[in-house]
Amino acid sequence: MMNEKDILANKVVSKMLETDYFSQWMGIEILEIREAYSRIQMTVRKEMMNGFGIAHGGISFAFADSAFAFACNSDGKITLALDVSISFPKPAKEGDVLIAEAKELNKTRRTGLYLIEITNQQKELIAVFKGTCYKTEKNLPV
Amino acid sequence: MMNEKDILANKVVSKMLETDYFSQWMGIEILEIREAYSRIQMTVRKEMMNGFGIAHGGISFAFADSAFAFACNSDGKITLALDVSISFPKPAKEGDVLIAEAKELNKTRRTGLYLIEITNQQKELIAVFKGTCYKTEKNLPV
Amino acid sequence: MMNEKDILANKVVSKMLETDYFSQWMGIEILEIREAYSRIQMTVRKEMMNGFGIAHGGISFAFADSAFAFACNSDGKITLALDVSISFPKPAKEGDVLIAEAKELNKTRRTGLYLIEITNQQKELIAVFKGTCYKTEKNLPV
Amino acid sequence: MMNEKDILANKVVSKMLETDYFSQWMGIEILEIREAYSRIQMTVRKEMMNGFGIAHGGISFAFADSAFAFACNSDGKITLALDVSISFPKPAKEGDVLIAEAKELNKTRRTGLYLIEITNQQKELIAVFKGTCYKTEKNLPV
Repeated sequence: MMNEKDILANKVVSKMLETDYFSQWMGIEILEIREAYSRIQMTVRKEMMNGFGIAHGGISFAFADSAFAFACNSDGKITLALDVSISFPKPAKEGDVLIAEAKELNKTRRTGLYLIEITNQQKELIAVFKGTCYKTEKNLPV
Repeated sequence: MMNEKDILANKVVSKMLETDYFSQWMGIEILEIREAYSRIQMTVRKEMMNGFGIAHGGISFAFADSAFAFACNSDGKITLALDVSISFPKPAKEGDVLIAEAKELNKTRRTGLYLIEITNQQKELIAVFKGTCYKTEKNLPV
Repeated sequence: MMNEKDILANKVVSKMLETDYFSQWMGIEILEIREAYSRIQMTVRKEMMNGFGIAHGGISFAFADSAFAFACNSDGKITLALDVSISFPKPAKEGDVLIAEAKELNKTRRTGLYLIEITNQQKELIAVFKGTCYKTEKNLPV
Repeated sequence: MMNEKDILANKVVSKMLETDYFSQWMGIEILEIREAYSRIQMTVRKEMMNGFGIAHGGISFAFADSAFAFACNSDGKITLALDVSISFPKPAKEGDVLIAEAKELNKTRRTGLYLIEITNQQKELIAVFKGTCYKTEKNLPV
């Protein structure tokens, strides 16, 4: 059962997605949203490939970055990515079904630290994303 | 005038772009390619926006990542991103004309270190991307 | 009970520590070493402070970096840090007893990816360290 | 000739160094301090070595981190490192004379982005450090 904070988190993410045209383009589906947490899914398409026939690094980054944004904005305060480090253990391929899971490692009044892992349909680790965000004082209109 | 290495670099990047469907989708144009160096351009479109009406972080990352790939593959050996850190000093907006410039900071037999900076049409700094790559022993067919 | 790989890991780390003068200076104690894993401890001293009366960021980094080195060299092949990203959720203070735990997230023939977390005696998160290493072909003499 | 901001920057760093016991232990010497800029020097000693006979990664990090702190605190507001990414192109050795130079890439009201490069006496690149800091509202007592 969801508590009030989780209900708010789901409202916020629905609102964000309405005008998040790039997440729409990627075909991101929401699997689970809770306070400071998100789990999302997408399928890798041909137009996401780079010149080596694997998914462009920007696709993995963008997918993890959406999971990050959904998790760190879940309290309704507009929050922006400041700094991210990403590692690419394994390439993603056309047709892969990817899952990104974002977890909060730390939170202060103004900043947050999240870890996002992307895995494929074989549970192989595709990317590890560590992100620091900055929380503004503005509320997201929900 | 271009030397032999710069000529090879241009051939390699042309070849990479032919099947780099995501760089094509982004509308990336090549401004300059030399050995271990690239400068590229793109215009931010509506479908690249996130839920806050600014460019999705994945777009800035992907754009810098393409500049990185063009520079670090310029010797014709297939080279893959291992680890990247990116900072976002300022958001990119719809209609912005972005330039990414990739420079090599270091090279060993197997690894390389690059710095990529993205600026907008007002020369404002949009992103700083520090990337480490791993050079395989395979040649790119050019 | 330890298997052969864990026994090798312990031998390697003992050998490394013999001439690791800076880890000795930090007063690092080994709590547990296994294949691709380490858990170590240290106490923060006055000479480790920075100008704000908290532990210098270099101390937290160095402590995590030692845990990283012990874990990624545990197979006896000399392995070097290529690239690290570290976040500092909370400062460490004089007298704090810190624990660093290093876990392998991924391994290829030549590279490895590790996550190291530092916590204090109250189990508070002091630092999160994501490190990529490069494995040479040289064996550590054990 | 120094302007008022540069004079303040020098006062701030002198004050910080008085109780920065770890920078003292490293033997850091100030070469130049200006607003949002620092250049410092140190010599690598035997007690800074790791188990492979090269400088411990924590030493290079700590040296760059001091340069970062001197530059980003130069306006007298207490400023803390949030997130850092560091790459190690080349090891430092006993007896090496290292120089770290910190430059501001960006500044907002609450955050800053800096690039710090460490070179040795042969002008070889030892480390590249990209750091994001958070500016508190407290003044450093100078």
